[in-house]
Amino acid sequence: MEREVALKIVSEQLTERRYIHTLGVMETAIELADLYGEDVKKAEIAAIFHDYAKFRPKDEMKNIIKEQKMPNILLEHNSELWHAPVGAYLVEKEVGIHDEDILSAIKYHTSGRPNMALLEKIIYVADYIEPGRQFPGVEEVRDIAKHNLDQALVKAIQNTIVFLLKKNQTIYPDTIETYNFLVLKGGSAS
Amino acid sequence: MEREVALKIVSEQLTERRYIHTLGVMETAIELADLYGEDVKKAEIAAIFHDYAKFRPKDEMKNIIKEQKMPNILLEHNSELWHAPVGAYLVEKEVGIHDEDILSAIKYHTSGRPNMALLEKIIYVADYIEPGRQFPGVEEVRDIAKHNLDQALVKAIQNTIVFLLKKNQTIYPDTIETYNFLVLKGGSAS
Repeated sequence: MEREVALKIVSEQLTERRYIHTLGVMETAIELADLYGEDVKKAEIAAIFHDYAKFRPKDEMKNIIKEQKMPNILLEHNSELWHAPVGAYLVEKEVGIHDEDILSAIKYHTSGRPNMALLEKIIYVADYIEPGRQFPGVEEVRDIAKHNLDQALVKAIQNTIVFLLKKNQTIYPDTIETYNFLVLKGGSAS
Repeated sequence: MEREVALKIVSEQLTERRYIHTLGVMETAIELADLYGEDVKKAEIAAIFHDYAKFRPKDEMKNIIKEQKMPNILLEHNSELWHAPVGAYLVEKEVGIHDEDILSAIKYHTSGRPNMALLEKIIYVADYIEPGRQFPGVEEVRDIAKHNLDQALVKAIQNTIVFLLKKNQTIYPDTIETYNFLVLKGGSAS
């Protein structure tokens, strides 16, 4: 799919602010794909569609999670997590993208998962460090991402967990498993 | 079991420093039991024996975890976690304490678990806030523990997770489940 076609489709799903974020993720994902040897076109498309379901009504997302037999535990956790797996489902169904690597990168871009594929890592990290992001710690992850994607991922997850803890929000078990997997693999961020 | 007998037994298992810590946990656990309506004698005995296995050789602990079919996942995580379930086992086998509440409080005093019993919470929190503890954040948990044990537990777990993240150590899934359970139940620490 041509970039302009993809951007046109996704622009109709997003607020202006989120569309600008998406452009940032696209740009960053392409850079990371180039740097780490991933298919640049796949990175572009996965990035463009990563937040496709971001503004779907909660009820619609909830119904899709139930009907498509996605993990029920999603419903016990923050609805911020829902748009990722629901997005992967809708991007296939509504946009007609069937590439499993791309769908998987969309599906896991918020929670992560143990043993992530390269494209999944790229979208996760690009989403975290794209130029529009300005929270504490992001600059450090940007620097790390230039030379070690796994370490950038660990650091991004660590920051995310601390952020959730400070807000007294639940931590999705897959996120901890992703972190533990990377730490045991030796992807320390320090 | 008389306090002096219990202390004599445990003193032979611990360094002087850890024995002094144990006295602090005992004192604090008794205060918390009194405050929250738990059996003070059970709190005393659970506290005295909570670190019973702390200085057992790793190989011995590993063998017990395997032989007693404790969760294998323990072995994937920091050995600091092992002395709690191994301690519960040895306190029953070697000391002859069979009270399930006490054994359970020893077993879960490091990892926590969802839906902890009152005595389990008391030992977990007492271990964290006993007078000898001096790390950042402990004073806040001491204050919270005076009026809300669940909130103190949440805050202690939050601090522990942040501490482990900063050291690039794995997070034991049960600890996250304990935290999530308390947050969903409404035990926010702020």
